[in-house]
Amino acid sequence: MLSLSNLPTPACLIDKVKMQNNIARLSTHIGSLGCRIRPHVKTHKSVEITQAIFEGGNASGITVSTLKEAKHFFAHGYKDVLYAVGIVPSKLEDVAQLLNQGCHLTIILDSVDMATRVVDSASAFGCIFPVMIELDTDGHRSGADPQGQEIINIANVLHQSEHTELKGVMTHAGESYNCFSHEEQRTIARQERDLSILAANRIRQQGIECAEVSIGSTPTAFAIDDLTGITEVRAGVYVLFDLVMAGLQVCKNENIAMSVLASVIGHQQHKDWVITDAGWMAMSRDRGTASHPVDQGYGLVCTVEGKVKADFIIADANQEHGILQHRNGSSETAISSFPLASKLRILPNHACSTAAQYDHFFLVENDTVLAELSTISGW
Amino acid sequence: MLSLSNLPTPACLIDKVKMQNNIARLSTHIGSLGCRIRPHVKTHKSVEITQAIFEGGNASGITVSTLKEAKHFFAHGYKDVLYAVGIVPSKLEDVAQLLNQGCHLTIILDSVDMATRVVDSASAFGCIFPVMIELDTDGHRSGADPQGQEIINIANVLHQSEHTELKGVMTHAGESYNCFSHEEQRTIARQERDLSILAANRIRQQGIECAEVSIGSTPTAFAIDDLTGITEVRAGVYVLFDLVMAGLQVCKNENIAMSVLASVIGHQQHKDWVITDAGWMAMSRDRGTASHPVDQGYGLVCTVEGKVKADFIIADANQEHGILQHRNGSSETAISSFPLASKLRILPNHACSTAAQYDHFFLVENDTVLAELSTISGW
Repeated sequence: MLSLSNLPTPACLIDKVKMQNNIARLSTHIGSLGCRIRPHVKTHKSVEITQAIFEGGNASGITVSTLKEAKHFFAHGYKDVLYAVGIVPSKLEDVAQLLNQGCHLTIILDSVDMATRVVDSASAFGCIFPVMIELDTDGHRSGADPQGQEIINIANVLHQSEHTELKGVMTHAGESYNCFSHEEQRTIARQERDLSILAANRIRQQGIECAEVSIGSTPTAFAIDDLTGITEVRAGVYVLFDLVMAGLQVCKNENIAMSVLASVIGHQQHKDWVITDAGWMAMSRDRGTASHPVDQGYGLVCTVEGKVKADFIIADANQEHGILQHRNGSSETAISSFPLASKLRILPNHACSTAAQYDHFFLVENDTVLAELSTISGW
Repeated sequence: MLSLSNLPTPACLIDKVKMQNNIARLSTHIGSLGCRIRPHVKTHKSVEITQAIFEGGNASGITVSTLKEAKHFFAHGYKDVLYAVGIVPSKLEDVAQLLNQGCHLTIILDSVDMATRVVDSASAFGCIFPVMIELDTDGHRSGADPQGQEIINIANVLHQSEHTELKGVMTHAGESYNCFSHEEQRTIARQERDLSILAANRIRQQGIECAEVSIGSTPTAFAIDDLTGITEVRAGVYVLFDLVMAGLQVCKNENIAMSVLASVIGHQQHKDWVITDAGWMAMSRDRGTASHPVDQGYGLVCTVEGKVKADFIIADANQEHGILQHRNGSSETAISSFPLASKLRILPNHACSTAAQYDHFFLVENDTVLAELSTISGW
C-alpha cells in the first residue's frame, strides 16, 4: 500500500473521509427539503468522485460545463446530463450525436435570437433537443430576466418547433459568492428560488409546459430552507470545498478535502522564505481569497498530516515555485517549521481551478494512498 | 484543409508566422552576441514548437520545469536538458533513470544543506549527477548569494564527491518582470550577467572548474547588449509572447502568436456585456496585467481574423464564461461589434498559464489550420 512519502510532488490529494462527509452533508440537507441534487462535475471531472456522490444519495443526473465532460461521463454510464453553458449552433452536431446515442443531454440558452438560431439549425439533425431557459436572478453573468417578456418569447419559439422540447428553467446564483454571511446567502438563495418559480409559472400561464425548475450554487444550496416548487439543486464545489468556501463561512478549513502535497526545495534564510515545488502550476493562478477579509495567498499551509498551520500561506508563486511565508512575521519562523526536503500540504483557494491543473488525483485516508482517481481536461 | 470556422471553441491558436518571427528575433540577437539559447519549453511543452525553435538556429539544449517534461522531450530526441527547479533527494531516482538512459540531465540546488543531501543520496544510483548552482541575482525567488560564502561551500561539496559533477552556475532575473522600460531591463540584465560571472570566477579561484554560466529571462535576453563570459541564455515565453510581455514593452500586441478562439454565446443588452465560451478555464486565472499601467482583464479581444480591438477586453470570467466589455464604455457597443454566435480571438495575459489549460494547440496561418500541435501537462 502506498503512503504519502511514496508520492511525487507536487500531487493533488483528495481526503476520502472529508469528501464523504461533504457529500453526506448536502445530500442530507437537500433530502430533508424533499429535493434532489444534480451535481456539477466541472469541479473535479472525475468519474470516481461522481460515483461517490451518487452513492451518497439524492443525486439525479449530472451537470457539465463542456461537451467533452458530457461525452466522457456518458461513456461511463451517466445518461441524464445538463450542459449548463449557453449553446451555439456550431455545437449542435456534437449534442445531436450524444442524443442519438441515447444520452439525455439538455442544452440551455437565454435569448429569442439564440432560440431561433437553434430551432433553425436543429432540423438538420433528426432529433429533438431538450432545452432549458437560462435565467438571470442576480445580475452576475448570463440569463434572461425572469420577469421580462424575453422568456415568454423564447418559450414560444421552443414550444412551436418540432425539433426542440422546453424542459424548464434554470439559474445559478453567482452573487452568492459575494455573500460572507449565512443570512446574506439565504437572501440570495430565496431570491434565486422565488424568481425561478416565478419564471416557470409565467411560462405555464401561457399554456406551455415547464416541468423543471433547476437552481443552484454551493452557498445557496446550503443556505436555502424551503425548496417547494424546485425540482433540482445544482452544486459542484461542495464535494471538495476550498478556501473561498471557507472564507464565505460555508465550510471550515478542516472540511476541505483537496490539498496539494509539496516538497521544500529551498530556504531563503535572510527573508524567512521557504521555497516549495508547488507553484501556480500546482495551485492554479486562482486568487479567489484576494478580495476576502482573510487573503490566503496561493493557499493555506498544513503539515504533511493535514493539520492546518494557520499562520503560514503561499504568499507568492512562480510556475513551479511557491514562496511559503509567515502571514505577518513571527517568532515561529517558516524555515524552522518546514525543513529542507520535508513535505507539507497546501489547501487551495478554488478546488475547480486547482483540480484542472492535474491529470489525476490521489485518494487518501490519513497517510495511506487508497487509489489514483482519473480526471479529464480540455474541450 | 481545415479553417478556423471548423474548429470547436474554445481553442488555442498558434500563429505560425508570428511564432517564426519571434524565434528569429531572439536567435538573431543572441547569435549576434556570440552566444547560444537554451529555450525553456515550460511555456508550451510542445515538441513541435521546440523543433521550430531549433530550426530557427542558435539553440543548444533545452530547459524544463518538471521531470515529466524532461522525460517527454528526451523520448523525442532532446538529450541535453536542464531541470531548472531546485532538486530534492526524492526526485533523484527519476533523474538517475534518465541519466542511465543517456539523457544529459542537469539538476540545480542553492545550499550546502541540499548539496550534502544530494551527495549522500547520489551514491545509491551508480551515476554521476551533473549539477549547477542556482544564484539569486535580484532577490526574487531562489538561489544563493553570488558574493557569499555559500556558493564556495556548495562548490566544494559537489567537487569533492565522485557522484556529482559541478557544471556551472545559473540564475533567472525574475525582477525583469517588474521593469517597464528597456533601460530598466538592461540594468537588471547586466546585473544578472555580471553577478553570474562573478560567482563563476569566485568558484574558479578555488581551483574548481565552473564551465557553464547560464542566465536568462525573456526581458533580459532581449535587453542584454554584451554576453562575454556567458555560455547560454535561457528564455521561454518569447516564442509566443503575451500581454505581460507587451505591457513590459518587450514586444507589441501584434507579435503575440497565441490566441484563444471563442464563440459569442450570449448578450446582456442592458449592460452591453458579450458572453463568450472562453472563461478562465480557457484563458487561465492569470491576471498578470492587473499590476500593469494597462490592465487587460482576462485578455485583449481581437476579431476572428486576429486584428486587435484595443477597446475591448474580457473584463471578468467564470469557469466557462467570459464577460467581454468595452474598456471604458463607448458609442461603439460590445454587442454590436460581436454578434451572437460569431467568433473572436483573445490574446492571453500569460502564454505559459494559458497553454497549460489545453491538451493541444492549433497551428494557423491566416484562416487556415495547418496542424494540431501536441502538448503535455502535469508532473
